[in-house]
Amino acid sequence: MKVNGVDTRPIWLDPDLETVKVIDQRQLPHQYTIRDLTTVDDIVHAIQEMVVRGAPLIGVTGAYGVYLAARQLSNSKGQDKEFFSACDRIKSARPTAVNLAWAVDQVVSASLGAARLEKKAEAARTEAGRIAEKEAENCRKIGEYGLELIEKVSRRKNGRTVNILTHCNAGWLACVDYGTATAPIYAADSAGIDIHVWVDETRPLNQGARLTAWELGQQGVKHTVITDNAGGHLMQHDQVDMVITGTDRTTYTGDVANKIGTYLKALAARDNQIPFYVALPSSTFDWTLTDGVKEIPIEERNAEEVRFVQGADDSGVIRRVMIPPPKSAAGNYAFDVTPARLVTAFITERGLCKATPQDILRLFPEKKKITPGRIR
Amino acid sequence: MKVNGVDTRPIWLDPDLETVKVIDQRQLPHQYTIRDLTTVDDIVHAIQEMVVRGAPLIGVTGAYGVYLAARQLSNSKGQDKEFFSACDRIKSARPTAVNLAWAVDQVVSASLGAARLEKKAEAARTEAGRIAEKEAENCRKIGEYGLELIEKVSRRKNGRTVNILTHCNAGWLACVDYGTATAPIYAADSAGIDIHVWVDETRPLNQGARLTAWELGQQGVKHTVITDNAGGHLMQHDQVDMVITGTDRTTYTGDVANKIGTYLKALAARDNQIPFYVALPSSTFDWTLTDGVKEIPIEERNAEEVRFVQGADDSGVIRRVMIPPPKSAAGNYAFDVTPARLVTAFITERGLCKATPQDILRLFPEKKKITPGRIR
Repeated sequence: MKVNGVDTRPIWLDPDLETVKVIDQRQLPHQYTIRDLTTVDDIVHAIQEMVVRGAPLIGVTGAYGVYLAARQLSNSKGQDKEFFSACDRIKSARPTAVNLAWAVDQVVSASLGAARLEKKAEAARTEAGRIAEKEAENCRKIGEYGLELIEKVSRRKNGRTVNILTHCNAGWLACVDYGTATAPIYAADSAGIDIHVWVDETRPLNQGARLTAWELGQQGVKHTVITDNAGGHLMQHDQVDMVITGTDRTTYTGDVANKIGTYLKALAARDNQIPFYVALPSSTFDWTLTDGVKEIPIEERNAEEVRFVQGADDSGVIRRVMIPPPKSAAGNYAFDVTPARLVTAFITERGLCKATPQDILRLFPEKKKITPGRIR
Repeated sequence: MKVNGVDTRPIWLDPDLETVKVIDQRQLPHQYTIRDLTTVDDIVHAIQEMVVRGAPLIGVTGAYGVYLAARQLSNSKGQDKEFFSACDRIKSARPTAVNLAWAVDQVVSASLGAARLEKKAEAARTEAGRIAEKEAENCRKIGEYGLELIEKVSRRKNGRTVNILTHCNAGWLACVDYGTATAPIYAADSAGIDIHVWVDETRPLNQGARLTAWELGQQGVKHTVITDNAGGHLMQHDQVDMVITGTDRTTYTGDVANKIGTYLKALAARDNQIPFYVALPSSTFDWTLTDGVKEIPIEERNAEEVRFVQGADDSGVIRRVMIPPPKSAAGNYAFDVTPARLVTAFITERGLCKATPQDILRLFPEKKKITPGRIR
């Protein structure tokens, strides 16, 4: 997608094959900085500190992390043990997004076949690149399937503006290209459908106001930033035609872990008979858990992210300001789980499905053998 | 209530009888400043710019505004016409809280009886003072009735911590004393019940993180500041025993206008079988409207309040920082309406009642004659 008119991705391998390049998402929209990641430590730091974030992008970053680990091993003639411990460190950098463990495991598997160390690294690099391309292609397809939903609403409204609410950033910055929740939006915009996006600012880290608004602005899509509190009121007053969010982990039974606050929007959508869609590539499904609310680990992050807000001061300098009294405690729960019963449908790279194990497994029949089968 | 250990109110008339003193709530918790209001312009500015805020306090400020208007009239030997136009300006300073128009009308009525101008001003001053005392006393009673609810939960939990979630600031800063939603909390704390308050930060103006957290801290009540997104997750995980909020206007049919985002918390409370209480003095009831969602005017405030966040920088200087890209539009809806069906009960100065016209009018039978009787 475009940054200042130039096609850009949030992650790529430098032609030197030594450096993973990423957009530093902590500084956006006020500063546009590219960071170099060359070691496993760099990768873990980038994931933990949210230089990169978003389930698919965390996965791809982890995948390149495995490549860097294999490369380090190959250069230092190190032991397999070190390689596996590095991969474990990458996998546990953040707990909620399932894509991270999935992608790391994929690349490790691909590299295991190679006998010589440098071949291992080469296989890891090829697999990481393949995952990145596959995620981009999956998002493109999510866009195509989601476009049909938006077209339907546009026709019903006789071409009047379709208002879509989204939470957090499930855009191309969170993925490799197109985004998940934004893929249908970009597809609809390209197709000339009149759309407008309500962008939840998404406290504490404001990924909506900072990242989604920036993406949409760069792409020329009409949008309005709102507080996380506002969506229910807008839905009560016919200002929202559909909700589309991403997800960090979705059980094969249809429970959706996503940025904290998603559950509240799903409740409001249900209360106002507004469809609530979740867009995800298959790498975000967790085929092993049946009860999302009970079983998905919810990351608790540093309370300072709640106590402070970062932005540009009146001179354009990026600063943080403290909101509550210095002595007040703060809590920072990063995700919540929206039960399947509140989800209208999933938009996947294989098409739409309902939030039931039966319908999810209809689209992904090859996963039947790995699900526990303890269907609620 | 206490500020640095000293009993304080958010508004009082200076002994010079010329100056209305208020705490400037825009600077809290980082600066504690008292402002002097001496003219109708000062009053209107203080209400519009939210130097003072909170439905009961807006009402009392408006009441003192009528006194200042009568005083100006008396000093300048002006016309009644000017007096009434000044009162109209005060009444329309903010549209959603019904207490403002109610209090202004009360004081105007009280002053009309006096023949001479200076007597009018004196009558207005007496009535404004009476309203302030009455609001304080009503909040004290709300505390007593709400305490019974908290005691019940505490007993059920065998004395383990009672977790109460509140949104925005319906504390003593929003009233004259005790607060509405906080009155039961302070009463429970005084009674030695183990309580802990989840404080929604309440974007855009962060009245929860700034004001409620400050109040609770000054009073020594355990609390944790959370984002507005977090409440649903906490409720799903048994971390909330009850929700108590205030309101800016409640129809006699039970629909509750309150700070934007309240509706989302009410939905989450319902989804998790957690009681959702609204604490209010009778001055906040609107006896003329039957459908809150359709009929209560919702103030749209300046979008800059959403685009910028104010706080203390690392040197303690109060600054604002901009969150979204400079070119992104923002929307700022200040209130939403929680339908009566989501409210467990009201806590009023006359006791508890259900959110039905029958039960509300059971407590306030004298209002039957002014309600439209178009009960849904």
